[in-house]
Amino acid sequence: MNTPVNLAQAFSTFHDHWRPRLAGTLNDYVIKIVKFQGEFVWHKHDDTDELFLVHKGEMIVRFRDRDVPLKAGELFVIPKGVEHITVAENECEALLIELAGTRNTGDVEDPDKTATVEPSI
Amino acid sequence: MNTPVNLAQAFSTFHDHWRPRLAGTLNDYVIKIVKFQGEFVWHKHDDTDELFLVHKGEMIVRFRDRDVPLKAGELFVIPKGVEHITVAENECEALLIELAGTRNTGDVEDPDKTATVEPSI
Repeated sequence: MNTPVNLAQAFSTFHDHWRPRLAGTLNDYVIKIVKFQGEFVWHKHDDTDELFLVHKGEMIVRFRDRDVPLKAGELFVIPKGVEHITVAENECEALLIELAGTRNTGDVEDPDKTATVEPSI
Repeated sequence: MNTPVNLAQAFSTFHDHWRPRLAGTLNDYVIKIVKFQGEFVWHKHDDTDELFLVHKGEMIVRFRDRDVPLKAGELFVIPKGVEHITVAENECEALLIELAGTRNTGDVEDPDKTATVEPSI
């Protein structure tokens, strides 16, 4: 049976950046939490939209033609198939929801950023 | 193109209970926000899990055999097919994510609680 997740407690259990943790599932979707700082890599997900909900800090979802700034308590859905990069000047904590099996770097393989295993919280 | 949603701002735009507002979509899922107080109706959703993330206040997801208490900053996924009722002693604000087309009262039709139209925020 499912158990509740306290987000603040869950975020306190790890400190590395760009390594999502699995916080739960919703049908065939995964609920992940991640901490990050700096710039990710440009990529897109051809098969799924991607929900970001900022838990702490601020971030930018950058598209080729515009920036979407987000702060704690704001959510945004990145449309499938659209190239984007996530950027955070200072450490940011976010909740993500997307189809299970989605690679964090989408169509791109990056030696530092691609997460091959997503441990559970 | 999608726009960001500030949850505090979005919740400030309405005051009625048990009437979810549509805050966005994620593929074929809907992102809703809702305020409620008191007891909902016993029901289940045979086709979808249902994510609750409490934004403000406290609530209980009650199953026939146990209570799951939740407070602000806690998320929980109600498994598909399991009868449940949501309860809040005081007003509670929550974000929900579930398959589009899911009726809020699931397999039950209730003259007061069943939401036939879900206005956008």
